[in-house]
This record gives sequence, structure tokens and C-alpha cells, in this order.
Amino acid sequence: MLKPNLRYKELKDTYLFNTIYRKTNEYLAKNPEKTVLRMGVGDVSIPLCEPVIKALHKAVDDQGNKKTFHGYMPEVGDASLRKAIKEYYAKFSAKVEEDEIFVSSGACDDLGDILELFDKDNSVLVIEPAYPEYVDTNILCGRKVIHLASGEENGFLPMPETPADIIYICSPNNPTGAAYNREQLKVWVDFANKHGSVILFDAAYEIFIEGEDIPHSIFEIEGAKTCAIEICSLSKTAGFTGTRLGYTTVPKELIREGMNLNEMWSRNRETRTNGISYILQKGALAVFTPEGQECVHKNIDVYKKNASYFMEALDTAGIWYIGGKNSPYIWLKCPDGMSGWEFFDYLLNKIQVVGVPGDGFGECGKGYFRFSTFGSPEDTKEAADRLCKLLKKG
Amino acid sequence: MLKPNLRYKELKDTYLFNTIYRKTNEYLAKNPEKTVLRMGVGDVSIPLCEPVIKALHKAVDDQGNKKTFHGYMPEVGDASLRKAIKEYYAKFSAKVEEDEIFVSSGACDDLGDILELFDKDNSVLVIEPAYPEYVDTNILCGRKVIHLASGEENGFLPMPETPADIIYICSPNNPTGAAYNREQLKVWVDFANKHGSVILFDAAYEIFIEGEDIPHSIFEIEGAKTCAIEICSLSKTAGFTGTRLGYTTVPKELIREGMNLNEMWSRNRETRTNGISYILQKGALAVFTPEGQECVHKNIDVYKKNASYFMEALDTAGIWYIGGKNSPYIWLKCPDGMSGWEFFDYLLNKIQVVGVPGDGFGECGKGYFRFSTFGSPEDTKEAADRLCKLLKKG
Repeated sequence: MLKPNLRYKELKDTYLFNTIYRKTNEYLAKNPEKTVLRMGVGDVSIPLCEPVIKALHKAVDDQGNKKTFHGYMPEVGDASLRKAIKEYYAKFSAKVEEDEIFVSSGACDDLGDILELFDKDNSVLVIEPAYPEYVDTNILCGRKVIHLASGEENGFLPMPETPADIIYICSPNNPTGAAYNREQLKVWVDFANKHGSVILFDAAYEIFIEGEDIPHSIFEIEGAKTCAIEICSLSKTAGFTGTRLGYTTVPKELIREGMNLNEMWSRNRETRTNGISYILQKGALAVFTPEGQECVHKNIDVYKKNASYFMEALDTAGIWYIGGKNSPYIWLKCPDGMSGWEFFDYLLNKIQVVGVPGDGFGECGKGYFRFSTFGSPEDTKEAADRLCKLLKKG
Repeated sequence: MLKPNLRYKELKDTYLFNTIYRKTNEYLAKNPEKTVLRMGVGDVSIPLCEPVIKALHKAVDDQGNKKTFHGYMPEVGDASLRKAIKEYYAKFSAKVEEDEIFVSSGACDDLGDILELFDKDNSVLVIEPAYPEYVDTNILCGRKVIHLASGEENGFLPMPETPADIIYICSPNNPTGAAYNREQLKVWVDFANKHGSVILFDAAYEIFIEGEDIPHSIFEIEGAKTCAIEICSLSKTAGFTGTRLGYTTVPKELIREGMNLNEMWSRNRETRTNGISYILQKGALAVFTPEGQECVHKNIDVYKKNASYFMEALDTAGIWYIGGKNSPYIWLKCPDGMSGWEFFDYLLNKIQVVGVPGDGFGECGKGYFRFSTFGSPEDTKEAADRLCKLLKKG
């Protein structure tokens, strides 16, 4: 008799976005004349940029023509795309070789698959509040998850305390928007090397970094290549949330018990995938051209301008927040001791603005609230104006 | 100290196609005037058909336009594509609901991911010779793999003997091309229901089926919905090997220890993926239109014609083989007691035709050889002619 994976019972319901959706719709049903501004979800709104669209069309034509048709792609990724990503890394002074870069269907897929490199008995450290996938994927494997609390006292950037085998770091962070500087990340890298841990560094939001002191890649930090794997995505960088492509970097110096994790990951990809779509890889390649980079940064500037509307409103209202500067997320403390869901209801009812209660990202998120800056500039400006008028004291 | 997954040491080297590649290139370096015909690899050669190309272009345009741009797709798949697949199933009289169908990046990806539904201690039955991923993914999880031998005596279609929790069935089979009929599959389904097993049914080659007595889907068999998961792919069906898209069907009646595997898989997809590319799903949708189906079947007919060249040659030479009829593969017994690699060298040196030694698919594959019918008609006809002349007795 087959035994199912009983650990599914330990997963929490993914009710967060469903509840937001239901509450918003219930409000609209009762107040059909109101305009609700949805400022919660972390999905982009600006279409793919012209060089990417052009490359995608060209790749589609290739697939329709016998002379240019492509079958199975290399499981590790197309050589030209790996080269382009290597050169992108070089801009941050992160030395990464082509055969350390693996093209993926997106960060979400690889965050789960990468765990196949590790023994089931490894301990896992997750900084809270956190992206729920870090916890859920490890629960399904039966690993012990240690939570490291973060909060206002450390700017939601806690430093290492208890050793663990696998350490998740997301910087700039989802949901808080907080970003580790060079010096802080060096402490984490030294800690990981000392204890033989492996850091899973989620760099999905690196393109939002402005400050020189914030690394775009953990491989800018000395010693990272013996203790870190970096997981990257074009979802936010180039608007690929619905197009799908990412990459994962596993250094060749990353060795544990004599086993080379880069070689293991190559072998894993050979077994577990048949490569990423030719069409999507060609589209991704255009992101890394000078024209692609110019377009992509223009789009990011739109989201940054959106962030400035929120930041101005919160500054005026005297509300504590982080993020917005190196991140598309703004993480604020709910005013007047309100809980996340109380503040959600308050904003929906008073000014028809929807955000995300921090409760969805773990215990430490309670009493906080996330705004995303991925909406349209018009909606975001309007939402920030309403917010400012509502929360401004005196 | 992090402990790596030591089970990687138990994996066999994936030397098969590398060795074929190396031997072929060495021969060509010594004999530059010769034309080698590559009839081994299971990759398609006919470009994507016109309705698919048109749909892909349209979808790319959608992604470049603010009004039609799509961000995150539903993790389980686009509703319209799930509906089209349901209707495709209905043609085989397989009753499958839309929410039982999950769009995937391809069969290869889901064959690994699906194992997360099962406990680590479940036993696994793999019919040999087999697609290596069935074995490798389970070794990485630490599951015990039982091999069920097949051979000429049962037409490479063995019937159940020893119970196991997870049972892999690939029909039409890779590498042998053998396909179970309705009556035989019913025995497997009854066996699985009796023992509480779950059958993982790999239907990647269903489009090649000709006979009325061979089911396209295991869900044509009564009782399958309480014991089977079906894994499908457009790779061979519609030439998507380099474009990537598949689907996996998990019935709602599939329950073990009170846990519903359909609900578990929904939850798994929510956690483990952010959905499949909008562009690729639109391309896939075109495969299931009447125009798409017409084009796709025309292409399959080309491969079937290729099969007929090989079958005629082998019939003339009096060589034992199966496949070709309901499958793009032809599985033959190496003549004169040659081993797979001896026959490989013989064909390469004598007639410059390259195939795949059966050794790469497990112990039972020794002494057999696989040809693929995915090459161009010109090359395939020429290869079959050379083969016939070489092997014809008297």
C-alpha cells in the first residue's frame, strides 16, 4: 500500500492572497461605485521591452523553419546565455564562470529543486519574515527549520547566531525590502565558511539596488564561492513573471565531504530536466544586451518613482517603514497598534487601497504591512495621496 | 557542517550519448570523406507547425503590449489549455476533469517533481529496459527500486508479479516501442488497485498509437482513476523537445491513507512553481485546435513512413525487432550474437549508420539496439537501404 508524503499535513494553508482577494471582492460587491487600488501583489505591470519582444519573435520564426529549428537544449542552459550572464556578473565584480551558471525556469522552481543536493538531516535557517517557499519546500523534505527573528531593532537584517547547515538569505528582502550591506554579508559568509554551512542566496531583487555598499551578488563577497549558491530570476528584473526564466549559480569551489556541488547540480539537471525553452532563452539573451539593459533599467525607474510616492506619504505621516530604496517593496509598521488585518480592513474601507498584511510571512510579520511598487504610476500616486491624507497627523 | 546528498554516488554515469558522440566523431576524423547518418537520438527534426508558430507570435505580441500583457500564470496551468486537454482526452473516451490536469514544463520535470507526493519508504517497480530518469530520481530520494525484467519471451511487455508501491509504466515504451493493449493494462490497473499501488503512466508517445486495442491514456481503463497518474508531453506529439510543455493528470479519486493526491499536487504546484510561460501555453493551445491536430498528425505520418523503411529492411534481413508500429522507436536484436556496442561499431564502420546500444537502458537491454525514426526521410531511407544491403543473408 502506497504511503503518501504525510508532511503535506504540516503545511500551512496558502490563504493569504485568497483572503485578500475575497475581502476585496466582498467590499466591491457592497460598494460598486468605489475604485479599489490594488497595491499588494508582487507582480509586474510593464510589458516586456522591445529588444526582448524582437528576440522572441525571431526565436519563434527559428522554430518554424527546418534550417533553424532547435530540439532539445543543453540541460544546463544555452552557451550564449550562460556567457551573457557571466558578463553581467562581471559588472558587479563578481567572478563567476560560465559552467557555474545554470539556466532555470525561474527562481521558484530552482529553490525547490536545489534541495536535492542536500541530505535530509541538514538543519535549515530561515530569517523571518520570509517568502513562504523557503519553509514549505523544507517541510516537504522533512528538514528541521530554525527561524531567526528579525524586527525593527535590527532593521529586519539580523546577524548570525545559531549555526545551521542551510541558510536562506534574501537580499534585498521579500517582504521587507531590507538589504544587507557588504560588511554584514561578509559576516554571514565567514559564519557559513566557519560552520560548513551553505547559504542559499536569493537575489531576485538585485536590480533595485542603488547604494554602492549593497552587493548585487553574494559572489562580490570574498569567501562566498566556498559557501554559497545564488538563485536569480528575470521575473522582476525584466518583467518575466509570466514569461519565466531564471538562473542559478553553483560555484565549482563549493565542496562538502569531498563532493563537488557544481558537478552534482550538473548531474541533477541532466536527470531532472530536458533544458529550458529555446524561445525563452533567446528572449532572455536580449535582456543582457546593451539595448536590453537600457530598456529594463528604464522600467525599473518607473517602479522606483512609484516607491517614492509611497515613501513621501509615509514620511509625511510619520510612519516607520523600510524598503523602497533598494527594493520594490515597502514594509511599514501598522499605525496605532493595529494588526496587519485590521490595517488591511481600515485601508480598504476608508481609502480603497489594498496591501498585504505582514502576517502572511511568519510570526515576525505581525503588525506590519507590505506595499508593492509594481502597479501603474497613476494608481500608485493616487494610492499614496489617499494614504497620506488618511494617516497624516494633525 | 552541511552533509551533501550522498546518493549521488549511487548514480551511474550518463555516458551513453557522450560515448556515441565521441565514437562517431573519432570515426569522422579518420574518415572525413564518409557521410554518417545519425539514427540514434530521440529528438525530433520537423519544425513546429504553422498554427503553433502563429499562436506563439501572437502571444509574444501580447507580452509586449500593456493591455494584453500577462504576469504570473496560475500555477496549475491556464484554464483554456486545461479545457483543451480535457477535450483531447475525451476523444479517447478518457473522462478527465479540467482540475485533474496540470500544465508542466515537460514530462521530464514532472517525473521528478511528482515523487514529492510519496513517502520515502515506498518501493518502486521499474520495467527494464527503461528510461534512466525513473531509476535515477528515485535513487536520489533513497527509494528501493525493484527491476522487472522484460525480453523477447514476453514481447518486452511483462505482466505484474511482485507488488510495489510505485509502478512505472511507459507505453508505447521508450526504448523498446512495445505497447500494452487494453486487456494487459487492465491487469496492471487491477493489480495496482488490489495492492494500493500508484501507477506512474508515461504517455509521451501516445500519438504514435495506431491499433484500436492500444489505449492512448491509462484513463481509458476502468479503475485507473483510483490508482494512476499520467504524465504527458508535447515533445514528440508536436515537436516541442526544444520548446517545452507537457501536462500531468492526477485524478481526484486518487486517495491514499485519506490523503487526496490531486489536492496535494495542487498544493505542490503552488509551492514549487510560479506557473508555465504564457507564451508557451498559448503555443500549446494551438496544438489542440483542429488545424493544429491536422498538422501535427501530418508530421507524425512522416516519422511513421520513416519507421516503415527500417521495418522493411529488418524484415528483409530476417532480424527480430519490435516497435515502429505504435512507436517512433525500433528495438532490434543485434545479429550474430553481437553485443550492443559491437553492433554499434559494426554499423558505424561498415555503413556509417549510428544507433543506440540497448545497454544504456539497463541489463535487459544488452544485445539489443534502438533506432529512432525522428530523422529526415532522406537520411532514414538511405540508412535503411544501407542496413538492408549489409544484413541481408544470402
